Amino acid sequence: MKKTDNYSVPGFLASATSCGLGKEGELDLALIVSQKRAAAAGAFTTNRVKAAPILVSQERIKKGSIRAILANTSCANACTGIQGLNDAIKTADIVATCLDIDQSETVVASTGVIGVYLRVDLIEAAIPGLINNLSPHGFESVAQAIMTTDSFPKISYREGTVGGKLYHLVGVAKGAGMIMPNMATMLSFLLTDINIDPHSLSRLFLPAVDATFNRITVDGETSTNDMALILANGLAENGALGKKDLKVFGRDLHAVMAELAYMIAKDGEGASKVIIVEVNGAATRRDAQKAAREVANSNLVKTAVFGQDANWGRIMAALGRAGIKMEERKVQLWIEGVKIVEGGTMVSVDAEKEAAERMKGNEVTITIHLNQGRCRDRMITCDLTYDYIKINADYRS
Amino acid sequence: MKKTDNYSVPGFLASATSCGLGKEGELDLALIVSQKRAAAAGAFTTNRVKAAPILVSQERIKKGSIRAILANTSCANACTGIQGLNDAIKTADIVATCLDIDQSETVVASTGVIGVYLRVDLIEAAIPGLINNLSPHGFESVAQAIMTTDSFPKISYREGTVGGKLYHLVGVAKGAGMIMPNMATMLSFLLTDINIDPHSLSRLFLPAVDATFNRITVDGETSTNDMALILANGLAENGALGKKDLKVFGRDLHAVMAELAYMIAKDGEGASKVIIVEVNGAATRRDAQKAAREVANSNLVKTAVFGQDANWGRIMAALGRAGIKMEERKVQLWIEGVKIVEGGTMVSVDAEKEAAERMKGNEVTITIHLNQGRCRDRMITCDLTYDYIKINADYRS
Repeated sequence: MKKTDNYSVPGFLASATSCGLGKEGELDLALIVSQKRAAAAGAFTTNRVKAAPILVSQERIKKGSIRAILANTSCANACTGIQGLNDAIKTADIVATCLDIDQSETVVASTGVIGVYLRVDLIEAAIPGLINNLSPHGFESVAQAIMTTDSFPKISYREGTVGGKLYHLVGVAKGAGMIMPNMATMLSFLLTDINIDPHSLSRLFLPAVDATFNRITVDGETSTNDMALILANGLAENGALGKKDLKVFGRDLHAVMAELAYMIAKDGEGASKVIIVEVNGAATRRDAQKAAREVANSNLVKTAVFGQDANWGRIMAALGRAGIKMEERKVQLWIEGVKIVEGGTMVSVDAEKEAAERMKGNEVTITIHLNQGRCRDRMITCDLTYDYIKINADYRS
Repeated sequence: MKKTDNYSVPGFLASATSCGLGKEGELDLALIVSQKRAAAAGAFTTNRVKAAPILVSQERIKKGSIRAILANTSCANACTGIQGLNDAIKTADIVATCLDIDQSETVVASTGVIGVYLRVDLIEAAIPGLINNLSPHGFESVAQAIMTTDSFPKISYREGTVGGKLYHLVGVAKGAGMIMPNMATMLSFLLTDINIDPHSLSRLFLPAVDATFNRITVDGETSTNDMALILANGLAENGALGKKDLKVFGRDLHAVMAELAYMIAKDGEGASKVIIVEVNGAATRRDAQKAAREVANSNLVKTAVFGQDANWGRIMAALGRAGIKMEERKVQLWIEGVKIVEGGTMVSVDAEKEAAERMKGNEVTITIHLNQGRCRDRMITCDLTYDYIKINADYRS
């Protein structure tokens, strides 16, 4: 069941404010609080250069329970050394003190420019106001506050029942640039009142991260600050979750995360179209993944889609350099359902024209069949446009 | 010794024409002929999707001697199946017949749109004229004829002496887009009159390809049609080359190829600046190479350079995801000689401003020291600009 008019989850409160890190009046600081200790799981960037909030939160989440998340934009607090670590810990501690909760149950997330120190003074001054404004309906403002170059807030919601008990699940995310999850080149917070132990939560969450956030790319750039967290506070008061219950909740969790992932690709910096790259018939799962990723990250494929040009030769060239098992003469290729390559060569000029015609919409699906085996994978990305250059040549000015 | 006013090599003739494959009046077909059987070596794309001319030429060069090269633009003759192979062979055979040389000593090279069949009729009609116009001074027109989205022709020349005999060496190249050599994502033909056996020629040529053409990238895209060939016809009449002679010639060969490689990076599609990425202190040569390549292929680094923004955080993020041994706290980083990162964090705001100031020139050198070991490497690339998008969204229209 999906609702779009009311994003609240029992026991969770949220608020956001403009503390002065970003442009005047822009929401740049958000707080999420669980009224009760919540089971928690997280996925963090695989980049070896990890921002201070990643190091702090990754450590704290190991215990499996969290009460509060503080997130800021405009400053990544990455490449800031020992001072950056101290700053991250200090802001978390202020939240814990003001809320009178355990320091180890507060995590922090940051996004923004790398290499700049966090203005702890601005954050400290804003925390009492954030706490005063905590509300069960604060998630939309959180979704807004964590935006950087995002053009719209990303929020998704589901509810369902397990063992006769209603649960709620809300997710917020930010994306836009430096997006090639691995893990997930983005921030996302998921909050639910389902009653679940941390271990089971992790076992549902991490594969879902892999299937959703790790299957999108904007620019092939894995960031220093990526973090996806889920908190489950148990207020739904369901009993122990059976296999079927886990499946029900897992499906909703996947749906919320898939929606957020799609929104991130759709809102990729400068994007005008979503591109879905489906690879079938690969010899191995790894080959399917590599092929989908190579096509999805190809600047030439992405500019061709922007130009509404069914330039399948660029897709073939990307497959050829993906380092996978492939034979040119076995490749089949469809754009928006129109078969344009059979046996490695063009079906007809008419087919290509028809495909180009269908590329005028705001979603373009590229389907590849390698005919090497039975493995498949897919990636979601966006086209590469003038605005990507504009945003990234001007980002700090 | 370097000359720029006269590009001829004894025993080599060249010509170019407009046969109708490209836009009206544009040179699109070139022929290079050696009056004498020439020792030959070649490097070819590593893309698994190989154009028909690659398959034909790669096979023919194995014998180690070549007399003629026919090169066309506007059609890659890639992803064209058996018909493409027959077309490539047919054009080579026409050249061989008209010149009365052995068919196996004629090679072909193509560049242009993938998936389109070669207009053999147009090429056949143009070959007699090409042969009539062969001239010792035809290399500049060849350099022009092989241009696609290139904005200037690429030609380089050296001469030197071995064993008291003068040798000449000319090289032409094309690049612009789909450039991440591996091998070399481009076409290049090198012609010399030095007397050398095919085996020694290969042993000089392949490492030089690796050090020059394989160290440039425009967009991380390895093409289906890349080819670099060298022909040596022996007319310099030098005797057997000693170790010292090989070094002398090898140095000139490297210089010509490095010049051509630099020109390709400089003329990358839409480029406004050349970027040189130098990595020092890597644990292994492979790490040095991976780090340099990750930074050089980062869209975010390339757009920052376009915006003249000393955004070192994006360089750190690229290093962090390169899959190499690195510790953030050990990294040092310079832009145009200004040290902006020490111990993984920013030296000072002033240093960053000074670096940004120095980025206004048309060449930007990024120097990285990983402090993990003694290995180094470098890549040459270019910035990512609005014009890259324009060129590649409109390429076929």
